[in-house]
Parts: sequence; C-alpha cells; structure tokens
Amino acid sequence: MSYTIQGALMASDLGYETVDLQIVSDRITAMAPSLSPIGTIINGQNKLLLPGFVNAHTHSPEMWQRGLISPLPLELWLAELYDFIPLEPEQIYLSALHTAVETLLSGGTSVVDHLILIPGREEESIAAAVRAYQEIGIRAFIAPLIQDESLPASIPSGGTEQQHDPYLRSTATTLDLLQDTVEKFHRPEAGISVVIAPTGVQLCSDALLAGCIELSDRHQLCLHMHLLETHAQQRLAQEKYGCSAVTYLKQIGFLGSRTSLAHCVWLDESDIAILAETQSTVVHNPLSNLRLGSGIAPILKYRQAGVNVSFGCDGAASNDSQDLLEAIKIGSTLHNVTDTDYRHWISPREAIAMAALGGAQGLNLADEMGTLTVGKKADLVLYDLTNLSLLPRTDPIGLLVLGRPTRAVHSAWVNGKQVITEGKVATIDTDQLRQALFTHSHWQSQRASQTVQTLERHYREVMGLSV
Amino acid sequence: MSYTIQGALMASDLGYETVDLQIVSDRITAMAPSLSPIGTIINGQNKLLLPGFVNAHTHSPEMWQRGLISPLPLELWLAELYDFIPLEPEQIYLSALHTAVETLLSGGTSVVDHLILIPGREEESIAAAVRAYQEIGIRAFIAPLIQDESLPASIPSGGTEQQHDPYLRSTATTLDLLQDTVEKFHRPEAGISVVIAPTGVQLCSDALLAGCIELSDRHQLCLHMHLLETHAQQRLAQEKYGCSAVTYLKQIGFLGSRTSLAHCVWLDESDIAILAETQSTVVHNPLSNLRLGSGIAPILKYRQAGVNVSFGCDGAASNDSQDLLEAIKIGSTLHNVTDTDYRHWISPREAIAMAALGGAQGLNLADEMGTLTVGKKADLVLYDLTNLSLLPRTDPIGLLVLGRPTRAVHSAWVNGKQVITEGKVATIDTDQLRQALFTHSHWQSQRASQTVQTLERHYREVMGLSV
Repeated sequence: MSYTIQGALMASDLGYETVDLQIVSDRITAMAPSLSPIGTIINGQNKLLLPGFVNAHTHSPEMWQRGLISPLPLELWLAELYDFIPLEPEQIYLSALHTAVETLLSGGTSVVDHLILIPGREEESIAAAVRAYQEIGIRAFIAPLIQDESLPASIPSGGTEQQHDPYLRSTATTLDLLQDTVEKFHRPEAGISVVIAPTGVQLCSDALLAGCIELSDRHQLCLHMHLLETHAQQRLAQEKYGCSAVTYLKQIGFLGSRTSLAHCVWLDESDIAILAETQSTVVHNPLSNLRLGSGIAPILKYRQAGVNVSFGCDGAASNDSQDLLEAIKIGSTLHNVTDTDYRHWISPREAIAMAALGGAQGLNLADEMGTLTVGKKADLVLYDLTNLSLLPRTDPIGLLVLGRPTRAVHSAWVNGKQVITEGKVATIDTDQLRQALFTHSHWQSQRASQTVQTLERHYREVMGLSV
Repeated sequence: MSYTIQGALMASDLGYETVDLQIVSDRITAMAPSLSPIGTIINGQNKLLLPGFVNAHTHSPEMWQRGLISPLPLELWLAELYDFIPLEPEQIYLSALHTAVETLLSGGTSVVDHLILIPGREEESIAAAVRAYQEIGIRAFIAPLIQDESLPASIPSGGTEQQHDPYLRSTATTLDLLQDTVEKFHRPEAGISVVIAPTGVQLCSDALLAGCIELSDRHQLCLHMHLLETHAQQRLAQEKYGCSAVTYLKQIGFLGSRTSLAHCVWLDESDIAILAETQSTVVHNPLSNLRLGSGIAPILKYRQAGVNVSFGCDGAASNDSQDLLEAIKIGSTLHNVTDTDYRHWISPREAIAMAALGGAQGLNLADEMGTLTVGKKADLVLYDLTNLSLLPRTDPIGLLVLGRPTRAVHSAWVNGKQVITEGKVATIDTDQLRQALFTHSHWQSQRASQTVQTLERHYREVMGLSV
C-alpha cells in the first residue's frame, strides 16, 4: 500500500512546519512541503505527525490483575501477582491484544513484551502473544521472561540462613526453550523479534545469564532485563556478588548497545559511568516505580552522562495502564523535583525524542525507526489537534506531553500498514475484545495472597520495618 | 426532577454491593438494594456509583497557556504566565467552561477556581466565570485571586536591596472588589459560592490579609491561599516575618476549619502540627508540583497528623490538564517513594475519600457533600465499567484510581441536575466549545517572556544556581 499524508504539522528546529509525507510499502519514501499525491490520501490538516513511540518494557499478562494488587513493594507485590497468574493461552492472547490497543492509542507503534509464561505451556504462551501482535499489527519484541531461581530468593537474606525451593524449570530446559523460540518466532521482517530477557540478577544463576549472552551473540538478538529496581535488589546484589549488579553484568559481558535495562533506580555514579561506556539503554518506568515505591530513577544523571533513556509502561498490574503518553508525562516531569536547576529539566521535545528515537536505539534500531526520515520504517502517528484535550491551540508537542491527551491519536501506521484510522483500531474489533475481557473476569476486592503472608515477616525484618 | 439509579455497584465495607439510589430535587432521598422506581430511571448495571470529587484548586484562565510554558520553577513560570494573560472576558468564559468540562468528565462535580482577573475588568472576569459555571451546571467556588504586591516581591532578596513597583491595584480597592463580589455573586443555594483567596503571603500585605479574614468572618466565607509551594517561598517568609509562614498565618487568625491551603510542600513538623490543631485543609496538586519542580508535599505526614487533604489539578498551564483522576492517581502513588513502610501508603479507597469527602471538608461542607448518604446533596458520578480502560473486571475503585480511565464517566449529577448523560456533557454544546477554543488560539512555540529575562539573573543568584 501507498499513502500520502498531506499538510500535517511536523516539528522543525525552530517551531513547526507543514509537510507532505509519502509511504510506499513499509518505508517513508518522501517528505517535502508539497508532494504529488500517490496512493491513499490522508488529510493531515490540523494534525501533528510524529514517529511512533516504543513501549519499551511491559508484561502483557499483568492486564488481568490491573487495579487489583494492594499497595505493596515489588518483592511482595510479585508474590501476589504470581499467586494469581493467568493459566490459559487464550488469556495471554487477549491481554496482549489489550496491551497493544492501549499502546497504539497512546502513540506507541512498538512494544517490548517481557512476557510472563504459563508454567508447562511456555511455547503456547509465546505463540498466543505472537498471534495477538500479528493480528493487530503492532511491532512486537517478544522477550520471554525467564529465571531459574524461585521468588523468595529475590529478598536479601540479611545474613540469615535461607533455603529456597528449586525453580519450576531447569536452566538447561529454559535455554532450550529460548533457542526454540528464536527458531520458531524470530521474524523481524514480519514485525516479530525475539529478545533474550532474563528477569534480573536477583533470580538468575550465572549459568543462565551466560547462556543468554551466548544466545544473544549467536543470533545477534537484543538483551533485556530488570536492573536494580528496588533497594532490596541493590542489597541482594551485594550479598550475591560482593559488588554492584552493574559491575557484575559488565564483567560477564551482558551490557552493550543491544542491551536495555528496565528501571535502573538504585545505581550510583560508577554504575552510571558503566552504562554510558557500554552504550546500554535505560528503560524508565516512572508510574510503576511510584506505585511500588521503588524510588525515582536518576534519569537526569543518565542523560547528563550520555546514557540513552527510553520509556516503558511496565506491566498493567504495577501502573495500572498501558498509556505511553502518561508514562512520558510523568517520566519527564517527575525529575524536576530532583534537581533545582531547571536548565537540566527534560523538555517536551526531548521527552518525545526519548520515547521514539531512544526506544529505537534501545532495540538497536536507531537506523530504522524513531525519527521522521526518508528511508526509515513507516512507524508513524497522526494526532488530531482539534481534540478538546489538545485545545486551545498552543505548542502541539507541549500539549501532547504535558497535557492529558484523551483519544487524540487519529491515525497510525506500523511498517507502512495503517493500524489506526479515524481514532479507531483498524485491524481488530475492539468491541469484541471488550466483550471477551468482560466475560473472562469478575469484580473482586480484598484478595488474600498465601505467598505474601509467607514472605512478609522476613521482608519486613530484613528491610528494617517494624514487625 | 427525580431519578432512580437502579442496580449500580457501590463500595461497601468489605467489597461492593448493588444498590438503587433515588434523587429528588437536589438531594439523595433513598438508598437500598431495591427501591420502587420514581422519576427518570437510570440503568446502573455494570456501573460504579461514587460521590463527585472536588477539583479543590485551579485557575481556569491558565487553559489558554497550557502546553506552552517552558520548564521553569514557579517564580519564573509565573513571570511568563502573567506576560501573556488573557485580556478578554470572553476568554475567561471559555476557559472556565473548558475547565468545568474536563473536571466533570474525570469525576469532579465541584471546582474551586482561584480566578485570575483581567486588570481593570475584574468584575467582568468574575461574571464571565460565573456565567460559564452556571450554564454547565458544575458546583463552583469562585475565589478571585488577589494580591497587593508585584510579582518580583515573591523572590527572596537574599539580603540584597530590592525595589519593586507598586501593584496595579490598591489594598483598599481590592477589598472593596471582594465585598462587591460577595454581594453580587455569592449564591450557595444556586451552586455559586465566593471564597476569599489572597494568592499567598509572598505577595500580600498584612493589611490585605487582615481585610480578607474580616470579610470571611463577616460573611462566614471559606478562605483559600497558596502556601509554601516552593523553597523560595519558605525563605521569603523567613525574610518577611522572621518565622515560618504557617506560624504567621496562625498568629493573624487565617487558619481554621474554613481554610484550605494549596500545595503545602515546604512545611516542617511544627507547621504540620499547627495545620492539624487549626483543622485547616491541605489541597495537594501533585502534577503541578512535579511540573514546576516545587517538590513532593509531605502528604503521608499530613494524614498521620490528622490533617485533612484533598486534591486539585492546579491551573492548566502548570499541569497541563484538568483531569482529576490523573491528579488522584499521581497524588496517591507519588508518596510511596517517600516512606519505605507500605502500610502507610494511600490505598485507592482512601484516595477516593480524599477527593470527595476531603474536598467537601475543605469547603466546610462535609455535612452536605462527599459521601453517598441519604439527605446529602446529589453530587454523583456513575462510571461505565465496560469501558475498555476499566477492563478486565477486577477491583472497580482500583481500576479507577490506579489505571488511566479514558472517558469512563457515564453520567453525573450536580445538585440533583444531570450534567453528563451517556458520557456527554448534557448542558452545553462541546463541539461549539471546541470550535471557539480553536478560533481564539494559534499554534506557537518558543515564546519569549520579557519578565523572565528581567528576573532570571536575580532568581538564579539568590537560589544558588550558576549564573
């Protein structure tokens, strides 16, 4: 298919300019103030044209528990999450669709799904998510979430003797699963890429991490993990390695320009220098970090050190949404309270660049996506500037980032294919999706988690909270 | 008019229950699992019924500059804001309507408008806002924003000699204006109340504050002001009074159960004790405090001390939205990073109570609004739980507070009058409003503010920033 978007507003160095843009097949093929139209004509008048953003860290199956988990810190929140994880591939399919819909309707055209797998039905889980993303047409980076230690091992021992049950899947089986996943599902040209994504050093053996690095090297795949999300994780890394998690990851060769690291809240200056030196990417998940009380990631310091930063929504049970514009707003303004010099604060234009080009760079695709550039992939979004939430007319990018745009996406293309038309998802029936989500769920409150009850006393003791 | 809302979900002690609720004239007249219908029947199935929230601090004319002001701290941001303030009462009317629409569509049924006045056209400004709020039918608390010192006086001198121009209106004229406003517009029974609202100690003389207190006492009106929003204001209060602003306000008799104080970021333990003792209310404006880098207000400490806290959006040029659900989400989760003990964190149900009953209490109306209680005013909101942004079904209040509800308000009543029907504003034509906002504005960026340039050097010097 070909498209000509006519007369859209686009950011220029000094302000905005009106442009025509052409898409042929999967690429942007021309951009100029006035082009002879080809293909389908899209009226860009009173619309803002931006490159698509990357939802650079999420866990789609968490959708089933959004709004539900009590105010708890990560370690206990995870215990409750895993007590009630979806067990049917159909659920994985539906929550992946839902994640994609919310991402697309908030300006995202790519999603990195750090995908929670159903125990014993791992391949079906991955297949269900892949099917959802292909149907809806979002660019998907499937990052099966793996580990080889059981959840209680993620809480520091504090010097006490702790015995943990073995994890439900062996290291070797897990690495075989990843290898099979790559062979079966890694099809970047079709919009599905596999990412190697151990959950984090807190739940992975040296052998598992070594196997992940080997797989990534062999297939030139991106690496992804959670890194130092909480104070507990910082302390655990010291217990486990006698050094910071970042130093350890550098030593084993996990860091590099294909590596993106979610959260990065508890890093010090020398850790930050290592991320810069290795060209690793930080994925900032501000809403999750607030909800779980993890802390405020030192994003201004990353940017000053030259570390690439992108935005993620994180899973919908810790946010509890998949709205990228909300993550961008809070993720760019939150840091103003960490530095009194406003000249260091993130501007709306910088925030947009982090979400688009920063996201692309974190996936080693800065040459292919993230800017409006002839020759790059046509992953594009048109925002309706006559939407009430973007009025009165002022600075369109300021309105988008600092406001609260509500259904402001008019059209979107992924890989040259139109996936949003006139504010509606063009590729799937969202009413049917709503009906299915409704049918597969029920209203509830005050759910009791057995594992939280088991772990809470030790957690409070070791973290210095009154017991 | 009478209404019977049938079969809506309502929060109960242990979870949710299904209720019928009746409205006769302006009051809730009955509530039970099953009532004989009277008046218009509203289908409450798959909908959540809550008391309306209070948008407890905003400045409606800032709508004209939302998305536009660069990342700046309050003192410089204000300089830019006032360089470009609306000058026509018609603009005041439109931005008040717009503020009301966004408040209503995010669960608010009351708004406290700390109203910026057009110099020389003060009464027209107030009349324009009153007209807008009466047309749309939101419960409005009009708080004309007054001061009697000019803007540069709000920056600490740091021991240097500073001369400031006199303010454009005298103290006596300002107090006369307030007296006239009360006589002309204070009609609580018609949904319009006047609030006495000096901008803050940083820009008001002792005489003006004394006059405000006298007016409030004479007419039993609420008092409202900004309080210790920034570090600069904390330092200025010490320069001006030799004590904290809170100690000073207690001494002059400004604090009490009719007083609400916006921001309250820079208070210490003894200030907090004074707020508790005087039964004053804190209005938390989290999004503005982040955007302007003002800091994180110690909201958990206020709650522990027994201080009533409500939520405000603040003006749309420092937020840059009027979405109360966004303010409630961030205003309740933000504080999790300030206290490691998650047992102190604000739960979604507590957040809802702060927004509704806390808001009512801050206006001295806890007996009249803020809960679903027979005999109270019918200020009610029904949320559509089949909205995609509130699915899958889990805990409805958790979804509402922690998620990102998008056009989830199905119906709303203010003073027993239906103002939202089927997700649309029932009382005004929002397409016409969109058109008017579009016509009265233009896209722009990189606006230069003369006053920022004048003030910036002194601000940076006195705040210890490199010059």
